[in-house]
Amino acid sequence: MERLYEIQLFRKLLQFPLFQGMSQDDLTKIVGYVKFDFIKVERGKAVMHENDICDHLYFMLNGILEVRTPASDHGYTFVEHIHAPYTIQPERIFGLIQHYSHDFMAEETCGFVRIDKEEILKLSDNYFIFKLNLLNLLSREVQVCAREPWKSVPKNLEERIVRFIGQRCIRPAGRKEIFIKMTRLAEELNDSRLDVSIALNHLQDKGLIQLSRGKITVPAMEDLLK
Amino acid sequence: MERLYEIQLFRKLLQFPLFQGMSQDDLTKIVGYVKFDFIKVERGKAVMHENDICDHLYFMLNGILEVRTPASDHGYTFVEHIHAPYTIQPERIFGLIQHYSHDFMAEETCGFVRIDKEEILKLSDNYFIFKLNLLNLLSREVQVCAREPWKSVPKNLEERIVRFIGQRCIRPAGRKEIFIKMTRLAEELNDSRLDVSIALNHLQDKGLIQLSRGKITVPAMEDLLK
Repeated sequence: MERLYEIQLFRKLLQFPLFQGMSQDDLTKIVGYVKFDFIKVERGKAVMHENDICDHLYFMLNGILEVRTPASDHGYTFVEHIHAPYTIQPERIFGLIQHYSHDFMAEETCGFVRIDKEEILKLSDNYFIFKLNLLNLLSREVQVCAREPWKSVPKNLEERIVRFIGQRCIRPAGRKEIFIKMTRLAEELNDSRLDVSIALNHLQDKGLIQLSRGKITVPAMEDLLK
Repeated sequence: MERLYEIQLFRKLLQFPLFQGMSQDDLTKIVGYVKFDFIKVERGKAVMHENDICDHLYFMLNGILEVRTPASDHGYTFVEHIHAPYTIQPERIFGLIQHYSHDFMAEETCGFVRIDKEEILKLSDNYFIFKLNLLNLLSREVQVCAREPWKSVPKNLEERIVRFIGQRCIRPAGRKEIFIKMTRLAEELNDSRLDVSIALNHLQDKGLIQLSRGKITVPAMEDLLK
């Protein structure tokens, strides 16, 4: 039974970019000496809050996270629903700001493997592939982010709205909710409230978003980005 | 003489984020076994072009680089002037895209220490501080980049122009030239050509930018960002 459980854990860990390419042999050894904490967060409970210290990596094995991000002036809020497997903000255990930048809540009961920062550094010392995975993951993030400003101009206001939403997504797929007033969105896009309203209604007519008071719902971000 | 040269090299390497915090002792050992190439690029010559393969890290010890970046649709071009010390795109030797994303030209004769990717990995294996510097540097880049979309809305068109320029800078200081038509800038900012022209002229009147046909010059980005 124990053995079966281990095999299941290996399979699950291999889904995470940081463990990709590792052999079962490596993973067996790792389980032998790395301190893994197993954490379960019940539905509706917070996993961590914005500004909490990030000194562990959380690998979500199962469940759904609600990730909530306010604009820096709290003028609007963005909500995402992230399914496992997901690694919570690996770019925050190093660097200038070692605090989370979002609120994470268990939307469905979530199971995590948690690894301490020191252990992550040990892993990157002892496993070349792990170190390379970590460097590749962080570099990839920089590359994707840095490309953003150089993209072509959106052709119309609808495309501007799609880009506004897309730039704020952790994952470019799944359901999103944006709690934003039409006037704020108009300011963000440097356009009139009326034109923004017309464009949003066009997107709603196409079935890509749903509008309600102070809220835009994107049922499937992958469809909006098409 | 050799010894004096070595000490000078140590001092210069310590200016780079990747070598920060290393002892002279460490650096002496490193110089003993890491393959450093010394490269000089004469004024006016290319150091590398956009899309060249990035399999080395270039540490610029002296000189000035002209860094040229086209928009992805080549609708405008951004030019920066970067003084030593400067590490050329450390986020490009790992990750998805291992190619440079800018053109680099020696504006004044430039001296580089060049280190192979394999040697960089060896350094990060053998020196904890080097590995931590590398992870911190990449993480910091992600953090800075990821914060961008969440900033407050610019209050007026002048601020939008400043943000447009600021988001495209490698360094938020020094001289920049943007080769862009007023119509393109107006499209980027979702505003009218006339209003963009008025705002640019205000900025020029304040001495923060200089306008010429198809070109905006920022003499000192640090002043524009104030």
